[in-house]
Amino acid sequence: MILINGQPDNRIPATDRGLQYGDGLFETLAFREGRLEFLNAHLQRLMLGCERLGIPFPDKHKLQLELATLCAQTAEDSVIKIMLTRGSGGRGYKAPAEADPLRIISSHPMPDYPDSCREGVTARLCRYRLGVNPNLAGIKHLNRLEQVLARSEWDDEEIREGLMLDINDNLIEGTMSNLFLIDKGQIMTPAIDQNGIAGIMRAEVIKLAAKLDIPVSEKTLTFNDLQRADEVFVTNSIIEIWPLTQLIDPEQHWPHGILTRRLQSELEQTER
Amino acid sequence: MILINGQPDNRIPATDRGLQYGDGLFETLAFREGRLEFLNAHLQRLMLGCERLGIPFPDKHKLQLELATLCAQTAEDSVIKIMLTRGSGGRGYKAPAEADPLRIISSHPMPDYPDSCREGVTARLCRYRLGVNPNLAGIKHLNRLEQVLARSEWDDEEIREGLMLDINDNLIEGTMSNLFLIDKGQIMTPAIDQNGIAGIMRAEVIKLAAKLDIPVSEKTLTFNDLQRADEVFVTNSIIEIWPLTQLIDPEQHWPHGILTRRLQSELEQTER
Repeated sequence: MILINGQPDNRIPATDRGLQYGDGLFETLAFREGRLEFLNAHLQRLMLGCERLGIPFPDKHKLQLELATLCAQTAEDSVIKIMLTRGSGGRGYKAPAEADPLRIISSHPMPDYPDSCREGVTARLCRYRLGVNPNLAGIKHLNRLEQVLARSEWDDEEIREGLMLDINDNLIEGTMSNLFLIDKGQIMTPAIDQNGIAGIMRAEVIKLAAKLDIPVSEKTLTFNDLQRADEVFVTNSIIEIWPLTQLIDPEQHWPHGILTRRLQSELEQTER
Repeated sequence: MILINGQPDNRIPATDRGLQYGDGLFETLAFREGRLEFLNAHLQRLMLGCERLGIPFPDKHKLQLELATLCAQTAEDSVIKIMLTRGSGGRGYKAPAEADPLRIISSHPMPDYPDSCREGVTARLCRYRLGVNPNLAGIKHLNRLEQVLARSEWDDEEIREGLMLDINDNLIEGTMSNLFLIDKGQIMTPAIDQNGIAGIMRAEVIKLAAKLDIPVSEKTLTFNDLQRADEVFVTNSIIEIWPLTQLIDPEQHWPHGILTRRLQSELEQTER
């Protein structure tokens, strides 16, 4: 089901700037056991993205009502996607003075990942290198060709994720997830000030680590840091925490380690 | 008028990957005196973009028929935009094995630039810095948030263009145009292997310069090179060649010089 500006529909104007320029933002939320998980954090990030792009944030109450309408029609656990574009208008790249943003909220089947993913997944290293763009780093905007190109590198369903370096040889994230390394009891995750996305689950894991008194830092990381790590995991709002237990090409293995297990177990008990 | 996959329409599926990820390409052509200018060059670049993104190029004959249909309904000189997306489908960023691309071709009024633009325009220097992304450099893809953000910096209609540096302090292009500097009889234009667009008019000007025996080179250029230049001009398929005669903030003036005039006059006589 899709609601477009609150109405059931499945098409948008061809003039929409989301299509023309990727001029918009999105959020991907888990709807589980009747609850939109981490809704406030998602709306907060959407609001931050709106500020960065200069798109008026929609009436929050109206948006929440629309989400409730959509979820009421969604019996089972689902993925809910919110897209917000600047709407139509303007002259070329120049945005209209009074933007009329388009809200597109839609429900999608939860991907059928096997339960075993929570005990370990296999990833590969993408050949595609992320560019560097501090102005767009962190926010979840609609310019996602880099992820599309990286994800096009493999077909094997057993490979659950592709890790991405950037053009400066820094290790940044997975195509659809944030990355965490654990080295000698310390948790590290790549800084996302040059590229990458500020994942909601990434922020949640940082919070959990602090709560559990595990040292955690955001920093510049390289492939060497990955090779040196004792445990590795990837996160997003749908998969939550997946231990990365195997990298292929170059081949390397990590255990489903004790700190990753602690974070997974703590996350399970976290209010969403 | 808009033709979507050959049919008059003005809406596209909300599931289209052009909207979801900016997963597509576009071309902007001038339709003047009954002719789609530099059509073959535009189709050639579109084809190159398709190769880079792995999007199947549509049947060329069919696309040309659709363009002819659109132009037949377009009495006056117009801007024709071709968009080609990967269509709907796939799982997240992963593209479908068999893409079903969407063709959106549309006509738009020619912008009402005053004739005086051909004798000189005013530009400014954008604060927004282009990122660096060699994988996407050159092609005209739908991830255009950088241009949207740079173009949002000014409202004054008398300022016709904004010049853009990248995060490495290299001078790259205008928000909607390519840039040329003339220094001691030599024509130079920024290299576009790290970012920027390989404009059709840019290629045409390089060809014309060679024909006129004026030395021309693509190279890494900085703001200093701009300040040192004897003549400056910007190009795109719609504006053709605009001499840049004034930069504001920092203020600088250049003449509508002799080499720029020669190129403009040669371009007028060029078969399109």
